[in-house]
Parts: sequence; C-alpha cells; structure tokens
Amino acid sequence: MVFDLHEAMENNTRSVEGVLNKFLSKGEGPERRVTEAMRYASLGGGKRIRPFLVNASARLFGVNEISALRASAAIEMVHCYSLIHDDLPAMDDDEMRRGRATCHVQFDEATAILAGDALLTKAFEIIASKETHEDPSVRSDLVLTLAQASGHEGMVGGQMFDLVAEGHDLNIQDITRLQKLKTGELIVAACQMGALLGKASNQDLQVLGGYALDIGLAYQIADDLLDVEGNAEDVGKKTGKDACAGKATFVSLLGVDGAREKARTLSNQANQKLATFGELAEPLRALAHFIVNRQS
Amino acid sequence: MVFDLHEAMENNTRSVEGVLNKFLSKGEGPERRVTEAMRYASLGGGKRIRPFLVNASARLFGVNEISALRASAAIEMVHCYSLIHDDLPAMDDDEMRRGRATCHVQFDEATAILAGDALLTKAFEIIASKETHEDPSVRSDLVLTLAQASGHEGMVGGQMFDLVAEGHDLNIQDITRLQKLKTGELIVAACQMGALLGKASNQDLQVLGGYALDIGLAYQIADDLLDVEGNAEDVGKKTGKDACAGKATFVSLLGVDGAREKARTLSNQANQKLATFGELAEPLRALAHFIVNRQS
Repeated sequence: MVFDLHEAMENNTRSVEGVLNKFLSKGEGPERRVTEAMRYASLGGGKRIRPFLVNASARLFGVNEISALRASAAIEMVHCYSLIHDDLPAMDDDEMRRGRATCHVQFDEATAILAGDALLTKAFEIIASKETHEDPSVRSDLVLTLAQASGHEGMVGGQMFDLVAEGHDLNIQDITRLQKLKTGELIVAACQMGALLGKASNQDLQVLGGYALDIGLAYQIADDLLDVEGNAEDVGKKTGKDACAGKATFVSLLGVDGAREKARTLSNQANQKLATFGELAEPLRALAHFIVNRQS
Repeated sequence: MVFDLHEAMENNTRSVEGVLNKFLSKGEGPERRVTEAMRYASLGGGKRIRPFLVNASARLFGVNEISALRASAAIEMVHCYSLIHDDLPAMDDDEMRRGRATCHVQFDEATAILAGDALLTKAFEIIASKETHEDPSVRSDLVLTLAQASGHEGMVGGQMFDLVAEGHDLNIQDITRLQKLKTGELIVAACQMGALLGKASNQDLQVLGGYALDIGLAYQIADDLLDVEGNAEDVGKKTGKDACAGKATFVSLLGVDGAREKARTLSNQANQKLATFGELAEPLRALAHFIVNRQS
C-alpha cells in the first residue's frame, strides 16, 4: 500500500491545531488581546511541516502521540512567532501571509510583537511540563535543542544575516549558510525533538539531523522557485519579492533548472539517509518528495 | 556587623555582568550584529535586582555560586529583552534608558526586535544546560517557572494590559493586578529560581514568593514616585511620563504620601515573611528596604 501523504498531512494538521487551540485558551482580562493575536497567528493555516516532522520522527521510536503532539505544538509556536516578527514593518514589512492579513495588520504592531514573544515563551513552557515527558532529562534536552536552534546562533541569527545581507552580493556558500541558520536549524530541531522523546541514540539523532538539513535546504530552494514561478493567489503571499529586492537566491545563482535539479538531488540524498529506519520512515520520505514538488 | 547592601549589590552586578559577558561572546558572520545589540542592551548598567534576588535566595539553601549566577544571568536576559521590546516605537517609544540611547535608537528597530527575541531564547538555553544544575528535574522546573512568569499569562500579558489600558480609568485593584503581571511575576520567579536550585520545600517557595510579590509592588510604587519626583538625569530615563500620558498610577490614586506609605508597608510586610530564614535572609531584607528608599 502506498503511503497517503495528503491524508497524513491533513490528519497532522487537524491534530496539531487541536492541541494549539487547547494551549491558547482565550483568557480573561484586557490582556486577552495578546492571546487572540497568538491564536490568529498560529491557527490560521499553514502546512504544519515542522509538527509533521516531530510526529513522523517520534513514530520511528514508538513515542506516544500526546508527547509528540505537545512537542509539535511547541515548535509550531516558535515557527509562527518567527513569522509574526519577520512580517513586521521594521523587518520584511509583509501585509499578507497564508492568504490573510499579517498579525500586525490585523491587530497592531505592539500586539504583534507581544504575541510573537508570548508564543516563543509558551513553547518552552509546554516542553518543560511534565505532561510532555515523564523523564526530566528528556524535557530539558528538548528545551536545549529548541533554544539552540532558534536563538542568535540559529534562526534569529539567520534573520539578522538576511537583513544585514540586503544589497550585498552573496555567493552560493553564503546563501547556504544563511538558509541553514534561518530555516534549516529549526527543521533539524523538529526531527531531533521527535527522536529525543523516544530516547534515540546519538547516531539516530545525527541521521535525522542530516535528513532534516537536506530537506530544509530543498524546501528553501522550492520557495525561491515559487517566488519566481508561482502566483500570489496559490502561494498565499506576495511573489516576485526577491527579484524586486535584488536579493540573491538559489534561483538567481543557479538558474531555474539548476535550482530545481539541486532541490531534487537534496531530496533524494535526504531519503537515502533514512535507509536504516526501513518502512517506518515512509512518512519522512514522502515529505521529502512533497517538499520539492509543492505548488504553494 | 551591619550587612553592607551597597557593596553586596556592586559585587552582584560585577559577577552577573561577568557571566553575561561570557554568554554573549561576539560571534562571527554578518549575524554578529544581533549579538552586539544583545550585549549593548544587557551589559549597559541597571541595578541587577532580579539577579540579586536569585543569588540571595539561592544562598538561603546553600546553592553553589556558579548555578546561581547562571540562573541570574538568564533572568536578567529576560528582563533586558522585555525592556528592549517595551522601548520600541510601536510600544512605549522611549529613546533613553539607563542614561543611554535605547537599543532600537543605537542599532535599528529590526535589530532590536531580534536582540530581544534572542535574549529570551538564550535565557532558556542557559537554564536547560547541564552546567546550571546536575539534576534535570531542577532544570526543567527552572524553565517552567521562568516561562510561566514571562509569557502571556505573566509579563507579556502585563505589557498587553498596560497598552490596552491606555486612556482608560483604572482603579487600585486593576493597577495592582497589572503590576503583578507586568513586573511582579518575574520578581517572584527570581526568588523561586534561587530556591529551586536548592531544592527548597514548597513551603519555602511560597514564603519567598510572598516576599517577592510584596517587594515587586513596592518597587513599582517607588517607580511611580520617582516618575513624579525624580529628575531624568538621576533616574536615567524620561520622567513625568505617566502624568503626560494621563496614566493612572499608585501615586495618582493614592497621592504622594499615601503611595509612599503603601510602599513602606509592603516592604515591612515582605520582611516579616522572612523570619523563618533568620540571619541568612539579611540581603533580602536590606534589598526590601533599599527598594522603597532608592533615588533612581
């Protein structure tokens, strides 16, 4: 039987949104405005790739579903916080995201900044809670992994790099490093958090990390291709931005065909690394394939 | 011998800044700009009250100095991140802090937002690390305590409340609740993190939490008094802001004398709670006294 990725992704999305919805209950007092903004930004669609990776990696090691879903929700909160802050006028100044107004447009800048801050904070609260895993060393390893991937030596560093690089010529090595920081490390963290929940060996953590780095880069190249070839309606956000901004991308450096070839190679390379996990890794393999073939 | 708070605070500041300096090494690549902003915002002075509370509470339970200093640095990073974001144009729009340009003025808004994000993230990385405590259950309790105090049901919620409340009449209950969220909970977390490092009993955690809530409120009332009576040069930031903004404060509701009396009562009440700790709690008692008598 062929693995049905479409169905698996829909189930994943439904489960993760259920958990996010539960974690972000509406609250009381005037400060509930920030919870509303957190809900708006995290329950408004998205492919939920990082949660999918947490859950698919966790399943390799027989992790129970509740643990995996809690870690999934935490990493998705970090992803959503990063989108809220990246979209701010002082950063990328985007007004549209996933086909809807961005958080600061829907609410206001102050609320958006606070909603991002609070989503990041809530993520750490969730994974440090006993309900996520009975073993406290697993919980603190989850915190460590998520924090290292998302801080100034990870995702935030990547966003800074991106802003500083505007108007500068970047070569392929620079862009690869930028994307590793900006998006790759959190994708690695997603796979590793799933594995940590199952007390995977260091070797398995390395293997999954390697898979994740490859698909993270492939994902970014596919994003660059969509920015050139996609239309805003399908993609759900403004396209053609990179060329307008004179930004070097994988497409501007490798050309459309070269970039597409590079993405395919990375996807295949990622999947070869999963051999050790056999059939169980089918969801991860299907995702790697999806990532380079998606239309949005 | 009388406890010399001035000297103890200076020693505390020196130690904490040493640790902050070590944690925020300059880094490489174009993204080092965010580390520079993190350093600017966290190494630029301040009374280091929260680190003092972590260290003084930790000493009650014989915690080793390195553990306490690491937790101190983490909570100070959270405090500094909150100041960076609060000062942003979209929030309080302050250009001066601790007698220097605020982070977004010295760098730019995007860098300031990212520096705040990264300080918050780094705080969790530090306390989740083995070097902070050998017992992983202590580490995950530290994360949980810090996250709960600083998220949308704590500090961030308080900042949201404050923004939403602008132009509305608040009564004394509202303001007390606002300040508990905005500043009180992090001060409670400081004392409790020190105690958690020493595996204190729930009863001792409660006692220290009660002390901290009282001095947190006293601190805020003293702040309101300084906003009315202090001058910008001594205080290191703009004064008279609250009256200009038509903001209800403890002073506008209780009058100068009433507010001063309330702060003294809270400080005394805080100190009475410490009886159980005897002589060892002298630093905490001296701090409660200092908080209501400070000139800046």
